[in-house]
Amino acid sequence: MLIGDDETVRDLTRGAVLLGTGGGGDPYIGQLLLQQEIREGRSARVIGLDELADDAFVVSVAGIGAPTVLIEHLQARGVCERLLAMMERHLDRRIDAIVPAEVGGMNSVIPLALGAQLGLPVVDADGMGRAFPHIEMVTFSVYGNRACPMVIGNELGDTVLIEQATSDRKVEDIARVVTGALGAMVYGVLYPMSGAELRRTAIANSLSYAMEIGRGIREARSASSNPVAALLGIVGDRSRGRFACELFDGKIIDIQRETRDGWHLATVTLAGLDDSAQRLELLLQNEFLVARQDGRTLCMVPDLIAVVDRETAEPINAERLKYGQRLKVLGLAAQEIMRRPECLAVFGPQAFGIDEPFVPIENLVAGS
Amino acid sequence: MLIGDDETVRDLTRGAVLLGTGGGGDPYIGQLLLQQEIREGRSARVIGLDELADDAFVVSVAGIGAPTVLIEHLQARGVCERLLAMMERHLDRRIDAIVPAEVGGMNSVIPLALGAQLGLPVVDADGMGRAFPHIEMVTFSVYGNRACPMVIGNELGDTVLIEQATSDRKVEDIARVVTGALGAMVYGVLYPMSGAELRRTAIANSLSYAMEIGRGIREARSASSNPVAALLGIVGDRSRGRFACELFDGKIIDIQRETRDGWHLATVTLAGLDDSAQRLELLLQNEFLVARQDGRTLCMVPDLIAVVDRETAEPINAERLKYGQRLKVLGLAAQEIMRRPECLAVFGPQAFGIDEPFVPIENLVAGS
Repeated sequence: MLIGDDETVRDLTRGAVLLGTGGGGDPYIGQLLLQQEIREGRSARVIGLDELADDAFVVSVAGIGAPTVLIEHLQARGVCERLLAMMERHLDRRIDAIVPAEVGGMNSVIPLALGAQLGLPVVDADGMGRAFPHIEMVTFSVYGNRACPMVIGNELGDTVLIEQATSDRKVEDIARVVTGALGAMVYGVLYPMSGAELRRTAIANSLSYAMEIGRGIREARSASSNPVAALLGIVGDRSRGRFACELFDGKIIDIQRETRDGWHLATVTLAGLDDSAQRLELLLQNEFLVARQDGRTLCMVPDLIAVVDRETAEPINAERLKYGQRLKVLGLAAQEIMRRPECLAVFGPQAFGIDEPFVPIENLVAGS
Repeated sequence: MLIGDDETVRDLTRGAVLLGTGGGGDPYIGQLLLQQEIREGRSARVIGLDELADDAFVVSVAGIGAPTVLIEHLQARGVCERLLAMMERHLDRRIDAIVPAEVGGMNSVIPLALGAQLGLPVVDADGMGRAFPHIEMVTFSVYGNRACPMVIGNELGDTVLIEQATSDRKVEDIARVVTGALGAMVYGVLYPMSGAELRRTAIANSLSYAMEIGRGIREARSASSNPVAALLGIVGDRSRGRFACELFDGKIIDIQRETRDGWHLATVTLAGLDDSAQRLELLLQNEFLVARQDGRTLCMVPDLIAVVDRETAEPINAERLKYGQRLKVLGLAAQEIMRRPECLAVFGPQAFGIDEPFVPIENLVAGS
């Protein structure tokens, strides 16, 4: 599959915001980079997991931190190209393909821009099926691949290699402080894997899923049908093993935000539109962690909580939420591979300090 | 020259504390490591700058941070060996010799322990002629060598390579946060240089100078002569281009300590022994920066301020200073190569926030 037109890029970005579950970083910069590639006549080639040779050499590429500053196109290209070259030199292997670490947020689009630039295929897969705040919170890691060697760099030429670390959590700790020292615009190349290792540990078809979501919303709008219903038809398509439902329909009556220890923390409270006493509370730690209605938990991490405009179904990042917005809150079941005990130990509720065992959204809403 | 007996090691350590000018880290751990090598039948071989081939490959090895925890001998050996091997692999060169970055404090002794272990010669030179808190504060850097590629690691196996950085100050910033993430016991291999580059930029004979100081103090004690006078005879030997003098003789009447932004800051006040109104104030930022008597500056960085026991001439680290100690404070002229404008820009008074231009100690005390 080739991504070579602006409409497809916008579809992908829209889906990536939804799968970012409130966070993941704004994909706008990645979108600009990819659109620039397309204007210059290049396309991103997306390949399926089954198209990878077992001994192919694959790496993830990600923007790290919060590149809120609009950056020069050529700079970003130069940084990632340098980092990939350093990884190749260090491991003495040619890179055959790149894979997004997370489909939610900016890091779904950045690998595509880079792939278009360098003529490298991008694998239609990721390690989260959503967005998470930490490097170790990926199925790649849970199922046995290592994040390092990892290369980190910025547009000034500063380049750091984490060659070896006690754990992927330690890689996260090191990468976080290095990112702080390197400044705002930092990229990383990590999770060097073989094609066989990626196939064994990845979440399949993530990019095409994000595009399907974005396209579904767009097409429903132009057909004047109900975009939220169309969206739920896609993300809740039981015939394809998916589950999703509307958790709440209401307006924001309170947002408490806090930045602590590098986290974007927030508590968002919605009230029903009919001035009912119903309240929905969303807890955010970069991404949404849990949705509770009147104290009862309706959806919890790693299941996805997505906030969309109640008319247009446009997905909205947590940082763009404002008092008075009228929204629908959706809950989406995470992929089965994300819900196993070994995954919950790394990115289940307890990993984020929530003192409740994980219960799948299907069971939580069935009880209502 | 071979260092193969405990007495020489203790001489070196004593001299290294004096040249640490209040800081540099306690050389005790390095001393234990080197003594262990000697007990196991190995010696450290010290070679002169003139014994290095022009195309020899030399690196510095240093403990970073404050390894106040007593560590296992084999661990420290393993860490440094691993880091040297990684540097060799990364640059595809065999390391021919190691050189201390600083002769003051712990990092004079650690390279000797490592040299003894690995059979690598240690160059009788350094980049400071004293101790400084930052990686970029070395003549190696001021005169054109680069700190990176630099390898950083700990005993757990965590390993980070700073491949490239905008400046050696940036290497310092990155290394500092990486050290924080890696924990207490961290080593670095840095400043890869050729023999010719080292010869052009190093301070010569640093290790033998530290040993001469330590030996001089010891011999004066056993000869029941005046150890402080003997010490001044060595560090103030004008026939060898040195200048030093006693700045003050007194007791500590106040110590204000503070840890801020990772700095060990202190103001130490001494009063004359005869209950005179004379006061000496020492400002410390890891190392002593300036000595002022009754408001008049007597000695300032990069010239050295050393505090010794007034009877035994034992040099005393700033962290071991206590209320009531009776001390002599000495001022030592820095090497000429350290006082040039390009050096003062990096480690002169202004670099430490002192709003006075550098004046050599010879001129300051001549005015009294």
